[in-house]
This record gives sequence, C-alpha cells and structure tokens, in this order.
Amino acid sequence: MKAYHGHILFTPTSQQFEIIANGYVLVDDGGVVESVFAADALPKRDDIEVVELGNKLLIPAMNDLHVHAPQLANMGLAMDMPLLPWLNKYTFPEEAKFADEDYARKMYSRFVSKLVKHGTMRAAVFATVHTPATLCLADLCHQAGIGAYIGVVGMDRNSPDNLRNTTDEAIASTQALCEHVSAYPRVKVIITPRFVPSCSPEMLTALAQQARELNLPIQSHLCETPKEIEWVLELEPQAACYADVYHHYGLLNEKTLMAHAVYPSEKDIELLLQTRATVVHCPTSNCNLGSGIAPIRQLLEAGVNVAMGTDVAAGHHLSMFRTMQYAIQMSKVIYAQHNREVSFLSLPEVFYMATKGGGKFFGQVGSFEAGYEFDALVIDDAALVDTLGTSPEQLYERLERFIYTGSEHQIERRFCSGREVVFRV
Amino acid sequence: MKAYHGHILFTPTSQQFEIIANGYVLVDDGGVVESVFAADALPKRDDIEVVELGNKLLIPAMNDLHVHAPQLANMGLAMDMPLLPWLNKYTFPEEAKFADEDYARKMYSRFVSKLVKHGTMRAAVFATVHTPATLCLADLCHQAGIGAYIGVVGMDRNSPDNLRNTTDEAIASTQALCEHVSAYPRVKVIITPRFVPSCSPEMLTALAQQARELNLPIQSHLCETPKEIEWVLELEPQAACYADVYHHYGLLNEKTLMAHAVYPSEKDIELLLQTRATVVHCPTSNCNLGSGIAPIRQLLEAGVNVAMGTDVAAGHHLSMFRTMQYAIQMSKVIYAQHNREVSFLSLPEVFYMATKGGGKFFGQVGSFEAGYEFDALVIDDAALVDTLGTSPEQLYERLERFIYTGSEHQIERRFCSGREVVFRV
Repeated sequence: MKAYHGHILFTPTSQQFEIIANGYVLVDDGGVVESVFAADALPKRDDIEVVELGNKLLIPAMNDLHVHAPQLANMGLAMDMPLLPWLNKYTFPEEAKFADEDYARKMYSRFVSKLVKHGTMRAAVFATVHTPATLCLADLCHQAGIGAYIGVVGMDRNSPDNLRNTTDEAIASTQALCEHVSAYPRVKVIITPRFVPSCSPEMLTALAQQARELNLPIQSHLCETPKEIEWVLELEPQAACYADVYHHYGLLNEKTLMAHAVYPSEKDIELLLQTRATVVHCPTSNCNLGSGIAPIRQLLEAGVNVAMGTDVAAGHHLSMFRTMQYAIQMSKVIYAQHNREVSFLSLPEVFYMATKGGGKFFGQVGSFEAGYEFDALVIDDAALVDTLGTSPEQLYERLERFIYTGSEHQIERRFCSGREVVFRV
Repeated sequence: MKAYHGHILFTPTSQQFEIIANGYVLVDDGGVVESVFAADALPKRDDIEVVELGNKLLIPAMNDLHVHAPQLANMGLAMDMPLLPWLNKYTFPEEAKFADEDYARKMYSRFVSKLVKHGTMRAAVFATVHTPATLCLADLCHQAGIGAYIGVVGMDRNSPDNLRNTTDEAIASTQALCEHVSAYPRVKVIITPRFVPSCSPEMLTALAQQARELNLPIQSHLCETPKEIEWVLELEPQAACYADVYHHYGLLNEKTLMAHAVYPSEKDIELLLQTRATVVHCPTSNCNLGSGIAPIRQLLEAGVNVAMGTDVAAGHHLSMFRTMQYAIQMSKVIYAQHNREVSFLSLPEVFYMATKGGGKFFGQVGSFEAGYEFDALVIDDAALVDTLGTSPEQLYERLERFIYTGSEHQIERRFCSGREVVFRV
C-alpha cells in the first residue's frame, strides 16, 4: 500500500476543488484509492510506503474522450478549411495511409507517446477502417500502460473508395479487435460509426446490434455544423433531429459518447438526456474549424453529462489542459455576447469535465475519492512560480497557473490505475 | 555584408506570403535588408559572407504592440474575474510592488528574457508609475538588444493611492526616461495614459502636450468592455464616443496605439481612420477577461491599421504565434455566428499584423523587403515534421504547423536590426 504525499487537488463535484496541502492519497496494491488524509492524519501502519512528492501538485490524470489517432500528422495543418472540405482534402488521404501497417505502427507509436507526455491516461479513440493498424494501436496503448476505448471506424457511404468498409467488414474488424484485446485490462473496444453521413442505415443497424450483443459502448459525432445537420436530415428525412437518427438505429444510450453538439436542437437535448448519453465538448476543434461554440452551460443546466476531448487533428494540440483553457474562453465569449447574464464555465467545472466527468466512462476514474482507480499526475510547477505557498488559495492559484501557462514539461510523473506510466520519446 | 541562406517566408502584404525555398536575405553591415534572392541568384561578391541556416525557416521576428511588463507575475492567475475587479484585486497590487527597484529589476529581467525567448524583438510596453523601475526596464531591453517603446504610466484618478502619480510627476518621469534612453538606438519612450478612467482631464491634456513637444508616440486602451465605455462616457459626458475623449485631448494621431477596440462605435472607427491611429488586437486577453471579440475584419475593411499584442497578464502567454492562433480562432467564431458570410482572418493576415503591421510603428520593421531592418527568427521545425519538403505549399504548411503546434523551443536564433539576440534564462 502506497501513500502519495504532496499537495492534492481534485474535483469530487464540478462546483469546487478539494484541496489538501501536504496531504496523502492512500492507494492499495490494486491501484485503487483507499482514502485521502490531511497533513498529519496518515495512520501509522507498517504496510504503508510513503511516496514523497515534496512541494508538488498531485492531481487526477486527464481523460481525452474524443481524439482521432490517425490524424496526428495533420495537427496544425490546413486550419483555414471548414469541416467537410477539410475531411476530403486532408483527413481522408492521411487516414488511407493506415492500410500500411508499418506506417500505422510508426504514427500510432508517436500518438501514444504524445498522449502520455500530455498526461492523458485514458482516451476514447477513433482509429480507421483498417483492422491490423487498429490492433497495433491497441497493443501500443496496452504496452504504454494507459487506458483506452478504441474503435475501428465504420464508414460505407459518402467516403473515398479507399476508406470504406462494408457492414460485414466493420463487424468483423470489431470482432477481431475484441478478441485481440480480451486479455488487456484497460484497453477496450468501442463501436464507432464515423457519423451519419458516412454510414448507411444497414451499417448503423448492424453496429447497434453488435454493441448490444457484445455490450460495447458507442462513439460518434453529433451536430457539429449547420451544413452537416442539414445533410443528415436530408439523408434521414424520417428523423426529428440529428440525435434521433442515432436513437432510431439503437445507438444512443448511457454508454454513448457524442462529440461536439455545437448546434443541438431542443429535441436533440431531450434525447441526450433521456438516453443519458455523454456529450464530448471539443472547444479547440470547434474554434479551428469555425464550427461555432457549443452551448455547454445550457447542456449542463439541462442535466446532460459533459466530458471533453482534444479532437486532434481538428484540435491542434493533445493537451487537455489547453482544452480546459479553450472551454473557459469560449464560454466567456458567450458570456460577453449575452450581456454577462449567463455564467461562464469555471475552472472547477472544466477540470471536472477533464477528470471525473470524462473518467466515468472508464469506471471509477478521475477523482481521488475512495474506490477510484489511482490515475494521477505529479506537477512540478517550481519553474512557474516564485513563492510556492501552500494555503488552499495559493494551491488553487498554482494549479490555475499551471493550467494556463504550464506545459507538458511540468508533468513529472504519471500514474494509471496505480501503476506508473513512463514517458518515452 | 551577410547573406542568410534558408527557407524564407514573409508577408509584404497581408494577402499572401512570399515564399522562397533555399533563398538568401542579403543584409548590409548596418543591419538593413539589401535584397532577397532565389536559390541560385545570389551574386558572387567577395564582401558577402553566407550564413548557412540549412533546412530551417527564416521569418521576420515578432512585434508585440501591447504588453504590461509589470504584470508578468499574474500571468495565468485569476482568469475568472472580469476587467475592473481583476485590475483592483490582482493588477494594481502587483504593479505597486515596482516601487521597489530590486523587485523591479528581478521581474523585468524575467520579462525581457521571456520576450526574447518567444521571438519578440520589438514591443510597446506599459511599465508602471515608478521612474527608477522604468529606467531599469529600458536598460534591460537595451542590454538584451531588442527594440521597445516604453511608457511610464500616467494615472491620477480612480486608482489606488499607492499607484497614482500627479500630472507633474508623470511629465517628469517621462522626461527622465527620455534623457535616460537618449543614447539607446532602439529603446524609445511612449506617452502612456493608462486609460480614460484613470486619467484626469489635466493629466490627459499635459501628456498630449508633452507628446507634441517631444514628438513621442502614445499608447492607451480603447473600448475594451461595455461597462468601461459607459464609465468613460459618464466621466467625459461631452465626448461623442470613447475615442473622442483621446481625440479631444490631442492624444489620437498616426503615432497612437489603441489596445483592444472590442466595441468601437461607428464614430470611434471614423476617428481611428481620420487620425490614422493603430488598433492593437489582443484576442487572448479579450477571451480571458470575457471582453468579447473585436471586429477586426470590420476594422480592416474600414482601412484601420491593426497590429497585435499579447496583453500579458490579461493574456496568459507572451507568444505572438499563439496570439495569431487566437486571432484566427476568434474571427472564426464571428464567421460561424454570421452564417459563414463574413470571412475569417487568414494566416497571412495575422502573420502580417504580428510582423509588418505592428512593425511599422518602429520604422521599416517586419518584412524582408529592401530597406527593412533585419529582424528575424530562425525556426528549426525538424521535431514537428516528418517530410521536410520545400515546395512553396510545403513551406507554408511547415510555417502553419509551427505557428499552431510549435513553441518557443523551436526558435533557434533571433535577430534584431541585424544583430543576433541571445536568449538567456
């Protein structure tokens, strides 16, 4: 049993941080948090080994709930194109390269290494249509020691020929991936229809059935741009709204992740609530593609669960800390545009989304409450601050300063489910 | 005479990059660009020493036209407060510390070092009301080899007691600063009334007179938030608009920098145009303070000159590259909110603002055209890209990728007016 001794900050609720200066997080040998103790309250027990973190911050690790692993090479490129042309000119040609397993291994190695570097210990990942490449991505996540839901993408219409799979192929790929990862404790499979325009009714129906049969979660995209929504409703004229398409085919439930929701209608919100699906907010991506600003305050007030994602490569970084900045900043644009009468997202709210809000999807993940897996980061902020105070207010400010002005270089140690994850270039 | 040999990118106009693979920038011994040559067109002359930059990018250096040097310690703190309470709780107490010259020297050293690190070779800087601290800042900029306009802040109303100066004190401080920097070739003085609410009519009148007498440029803040504008018009009820206050007191002319202009009225824009004042766009700051989004496309179409600034500490970084990202992203929010019927800011447009657009203020600065001072950065992007192609399209993509995904760590060399500026921690 280990007791990590440092300045502890986490968000049991989205309303405020729990902050313990010089506290202890007691973690059992299975990697699960047993308890948190204040500075002088650690029980004296022979089976406790103290891990001394000194004057450093100990926070839950990051969970990136929407990211496209094969798009890493496009990060920061062609940022002047809107969604649909960008997909055709940049995204699809790059994804097609993952037919080559060697290329896939090289690029996915980099992807996993960068996730680790940025302190992301759990991710929900879109791969491509290619089975061998996706198995390789699963292996790499497992070897790195991080947790992931990985999806072979299903896409059989309105897509380039070299990136389509048939319904049977998509089903078989997911089946193969399930078998491949069956012995992996934290790398799992997620059913991944790309988005409605790319998936025929047959594909959507079959993927929903496979999700039910294998008890798998589901991820896709929802209401990213007005043009896309219009297209979806042309393709599926029977639907009352975009979410209704997923709902109709049986793809919307409490284990569904829906990225974006920038333009949800009331009916979409109603369905998200009713099915208890999670919205994944990707503010950087929404900025870069000129998609707009997702109404996150409205979704939260309605009671929708919201997680966050980097959405690389529409997002130009893999940092969940930077994603927090953008989430706050975009909510401040809405705040400014509504005469300051709506509240913007607070730091505890976005921190919660990036930790416990997204972590829920992986089980008891994203907090230091008893029973949670110990996913954690040690932040050495000595280079950022002068006076390393340890009052709760000062620790809050140190974390805020790290989130805004720090970088992956200040992340000193990383843990996933109690095991140290080592960053390798 | 030196010929810098590398991949050259710059923006003679805001509409597009001039890109020369394996080209040469020929710089005379006075640090002025004589000419740019394509790969094989460099004349063979004995007096030319070739400086080999290999497969690296050579771009104009950054110009930060609005930054508060004494606020460095507040960077990334209290980002959940709006402008006026934030000034009172964080900004003013920190600025008051600069009465202590030792503290000033320590913090200003860091500030200048960080400017250099981020590739900013010219800046328009707000100091504080304190004369010795401001002289020290001028010394540090000169010693570092960068160019700067530095202003002693004038503020005599609606300010904390320990941060006020009288009109006479403000005039005397600026006079002292002028004498102190008289032998410095690139560190100059700028008249700096903080903003209308902090400056009495007497102060504004006297500073305008000093600017005229000493032929000094002027910097201040304009139309940052609706609440501030309301306050200004209460304080100066005779004014037709915020800009009209500065105009009335004689502070608005072609050598005036006005930060923000988030909410300019038509009359404000008219006055900006008429006086040929420059607006300094600070998109990161506007995001963080929930100020809103400045209508930059509208200002550009009206013909207003626009530069950019980081506005630390309302901005949480000193990077003009990141400022470019925010400028584009915020303009994409407007684009999304106006049915994609207004064009967002392009990469050449924001690059121009950060180089030639802002550089104008310092003379012939911010371009590699003949007659421009050689202010330049060498970017080693090898860590960011795989295939280091050198077609114009590929060089554009390499620069774009550096701007979005790179950091100060990829800035390998820095030049100001032909002299190498060395980054020291």
